[in-house]
Amino acid sequence: MNDIQEPKETVLRSATQEVVIGHHRRFCLIGERINPTGRRIFQEQLRAGDLSAIERDVKAQVEGGADVLDVNMGVPLTDEADLLVQAIRMVQSLTDLPICIDSSVVEALEAGLTAYDGRALVNSVTAEDERLAAILPLVKKHDAAVIALPNGADEIPMQADKRIELTRKIIEVATKEYGIAAADIVIDPLAMPIGADTTVVNTALETMQRIRSEFGVNMTCGASNVSFGMPARHTLGAAFLPMAMTAGLTSAIMDARTPVIVEAVKAADLLLGHDDWGMAWIAAHRARQAQAAEQTATA
Amino acid sequence: MNDIQEPKETVLRSATQEVVIGHHRRFCLIGERINPTGRRIFQEQLRAGDLSAIERDVKAQVEGGADVLDVNMGVPLTDEADLLVQAIRMVQSLTDLPICIDSSVVEALEAGLTAYDGRALVNSVTAEDERLAAILPLVKKHDAAVIALPNGADEIPMQADKRIELTRKIIEVATKEYGIAAADIVIDPLAMPIGADTTVVNTALETMQRIRSEFGVNMTCGASNVSFGMPARHTLGAAFLPMAMTAGLTSAIMDARTPVIVEAVKAADLLLGHDDWGMAWIAAHRARQAQAAEQTATA
Repeated sequence: MNDIQEPKETVLRSATQEVVIGHHRRFCLIGERINPTGRRIFQEQLRAGDLSAIERDVKAQVEGGADVLDVNMGVPLTDEADLLVQAIRMVQSLTDLPICIDSSVVEALEAGLTAYDGRALVNSVTAEDERLAAILPLVKKHDAAVIALPNGADEIPMQADKRIELTRKIIEVATKEYGIAAADIVIDPLAMPIGADTTVVNTALETMQRIRSEFGVNMTCGASNVSFGMPARHTLGAAFLPMAMTAGLTSAIMDARTPVIVEAVKAADLLLGHDDWGMAWIAAHRARQAQAAEQTATA
Repeated sequence: MNDIQEPKETVLRSATQEVVIGHHRRFCLIGERINPTGRRIFQEQLRAGDLSAIERDVKAQVEGGADVLDVNMGVPLTDEADLLVQAIRMVQSLTDLPICIDSSVVEALEAGLTAYDGRALVNSVTAEDERLAAILPLVKKHDAAVIALPNGADEIPMQADKRIELTRKIIEVATKEYGIAAADIVIDPLAMPIGADTTVVNTALETMQRIRSEFGVNMTCGASNVSFGMPARHTLGAAFLPMAMTAGLTSAIMDARTPVIVEAVKAADLLLGHDDWGMAWIAAHRARQAQAAEQTATA
């Protein structure tokens, strides 16, 4: 068990760029924006075969500080596999950032992995036997990494114990049955909306602490979920991420376009000793000052 | 040892108001502002016997959301005991919030405790034998609570192990030799400036986690220290406090006048399940909206 507990590093790549997720590294920001869920206009555009909005989404997230871009093309009544392949090719033509290929449709994941040039992160598999059997062979075949959710068929477990048990199952199946390295499994500790139940973040934080100490694998979660339905969502996001990082979260699928949230992550990187000499923090501050001075000069 | 590990509650009182610090309660914000350190004009005013600036400091901190006010009158070449008594009386005439009586001079602490109407928090004692012997009898005599720093005569220990050892010493001496309840000892886990050494926050966080699990006592720290000398201090403070709260910090002597910092604490309260149904969070949001609407209407 000793080597399982050591901090793992997950290597992702585009054609030209490598990103490493790890417990002793700066937090990995996975931009959530390229996703039609809740974006009616974007859905209509995609249905009409118009992917042009992606260009703006890539630009905003790259400028905001994303390290990886999630790409989800889940639009009902479309050929999701085809749309996903088009979107991946488009994103890869626009940026060097690695991609997180996001779909609940196995055929779309397969098409996306085949089209992708690099080492992708697959989003996602659950602890259900048939999902593990469908998705893990693809992950292995394409030498990808995979986000795994410790929930079964019925419902999301509300106890950390159950999430740890399912995490153990996922890691054992992936490593022993499919030969996937533990380093390539990124567990989602399941961050639920605080507005529905004020105990859910404590459960997520406990799950994170235990996954870090018991398995040493990397973790990611959908950080924007936490503030769903509450006012002042950005303030909640900016508090949640430093808290989760303290508990062991090493990446998040998140809003990478909102400075207050990105800066909170960068502050936590500095405070956790992942920004040597505070060089990145100070450089970012100087860049903001220079930009402000420029805006004043040209105003 | 079992009862020592249970979460303790520290009760503070003014003449009319009670504040309880505890691990299952909302974070206790101790306003740091009434302190002449680094405030040259305020120092000169105090030397001239002019305490009027305190009125503004009380108002800003009460409006900002402080639960307790720290009062420090450490001005060189003055009668600190006399100034402290005047300041405490003035603050008590202006607000119902309890006071944290802050001095390194034993005679000033004694005069302050005698003048104070309520149950004060004394700031602070160290693990040094002579300091414990000088200050703990005053704490006991005046039925106060006390902030204790786990550092000895020589220097601030940079290892969590040493801080835990000195915390144990302080708690044993205070409880066994002076009959002070463990609930009335508030440990300062020592948050140092991140700009000097990027490992110091990890050490503070580890110290907090261990103090919570090994002793269950409350904790406070000088939160503004952490960002000393770095740019974008408010962003660092707003990230540090939620992280420290996740590790077990239950109060801080802090900037209670800067909304971004206070709101980060309130967000962390909600996320940690210390704000039932999110009532306080939602109420604060509505109050801000109402205020904004009023400003628009009168503009």
